[in-house]
Amino acid sequence: MTKKTIGIIGGMGPLATADLFRKIVVHTQAGCDQEHIHVLMDNNTAIPDRTAALLSGGADPLPQMTKSARLLEQAGADCLIMPCNTAHCFHAAVQETVHIPLLNMLELTCSALQQQGIRCAGLLATNGTVQTGVYARMAERFGLTLLTPDAEGQQAVMDMIYQGVKAGKEDFDTTQVCKAVEDLQSRGAQTMILGCTELPLAVEMYHLDFPAIDPTLELAKGAIRFAGGTVRE
Amino acid sequence: MTKKTIGIIGGMGPLATADLFRKIVVHTQAGCDQEHIHVLMDNNTAIPDRTAALLSGGADPLPQMTKSARLLEQAGADCLIMPCNTAHCFHAAVQETVHIPLLNMLELTCSALQQQGIRCAGLLATNGTVQTGVYARMAERFGLTLLTPDAEGQQAVMDMIYQGVKAGKEDFDTTQVCKAVEDLQSRGAQTMILGCTELPLAVEMYHLDFPAIDPTLELAKGAIRFAGGTVRE
Repeated sequence: MTKKTIGIIGGMGPLATADLFRKIVVHTQAGCDQEHIHVLMDNNTAIPDRTAALLSGGADPLPQMTKSARLLEQAGADCLIMPCNTAHCFHAAVQETVHIPLLNMLELTCSALQQQGIRCAGLLATNGTVQTGVYARMAERFGLTLLTPDAEGQQAVMDMIYQGVKAGKEDFDTTQVCKAVEDLQSRGAQTMILGCTELPLAVEMYHLDFPAIDPTLELAKGAIRFAGGTVRE
Repeated sequence: MTKKTIGIIGGMGPLATADLFRKIVVHTQAGCDQEHIHVLMDNNTAIPDRTAALLSGGADPLPQMTKSARLLEQAGADCLIMPCNTAHCFHAAVQETVHIPLLNMLELTCSALQQQGIRCAGLLATNGTVQTGVYARMAERFGLTLLTPDAEGQQAVMDMIYQGVKAGKEDFDTTQVCKAVEDLQSRGAQTMILGCTELPLAVEMYHLDFPAIDPTLELAKGAIRFAGGTVRE
């Protein structure tokens, strides 16, 4: 066993962190405990909200993010991953503080879309992710057109993330979100990017059903490959 | 926020580790990321198999377990937990190597059974857990009678753990396990202790349906309380 160690900068959010770790385990080809990948995780719930920091002068999440990054590097991680799309606005800044690579979930997602032959995708994400253009810039590098919901649809997505999943509300009404998705599809989106790590959880919790790509899963697969493991599809 | 930090000695097994962390998140009363509990995890897959070490001269898991325990203590954990019943045979030895408490999953489970008024329970667990008597000794402290499956039933439980869950086999045949459970019930067991952390996963994966207590859940709840959080039932 010469597999590398994965470090998860977690807590953004905690359920998304659990989802990422579970996806690493489930998608690693392994016949016993010892064939799985060594993973270190810091579920650092002291990291302030990323969207609030980016758009409304909330506390800067960078100091706590780099604290976790360094802790994981020092504990033996060979690469880092973070299960929060919005946090990728701080990707370069976090990367600068450590000597090990911080894999990029957005890059892995756009690369997977390109490989699937997708040319136009809808972006379901937080206001922070949408308004900073962090996904749009990455999509451009991969020749991908990104569509975003109108104002009402965007608010519906935000509500599902914050009042739905993050608040653990199991009976959230998803009518408005489904309308936003239909609108994006009618405008040409071939698939939806579940561009907030709470959204794959929302899809499961609220039994949503539309073509979509799960960046958490792409990140899990990318991390397994980096660590030297084999991905179980 | 003055909540304490939980450290998970993980990798025993990896899916059970994911299950434990998820249960901590899901059962913490929290309305946003920042109200969740700080958790550090070392999914240390270099820890050798516990049952093999206890019963057939396999490699000693203690050095790797204590390595993880110390790493987590040094990284800031205020208490430790480990999602492996068999590993609790080494509980005292691991506890000796750190200055923070290592919560005991078996104690939390037997205490919960006592509070539920259970007097006789069936133990579904690995050969290591059954034959070392680690659960039987704890049960005695709580005035609880423990029944174990006959040889054939015990083999069926072991097969479901190792050839089923740990191997990621989704179509494992559970007929023999169900027969073992019925036999324990007919002998007076009021509930089953899912005394291997792969077993709550087996119950879900294979849609098993019988009265049971989930030690992983009791450990998650105990850890939330230790950390100063409120348990969401």
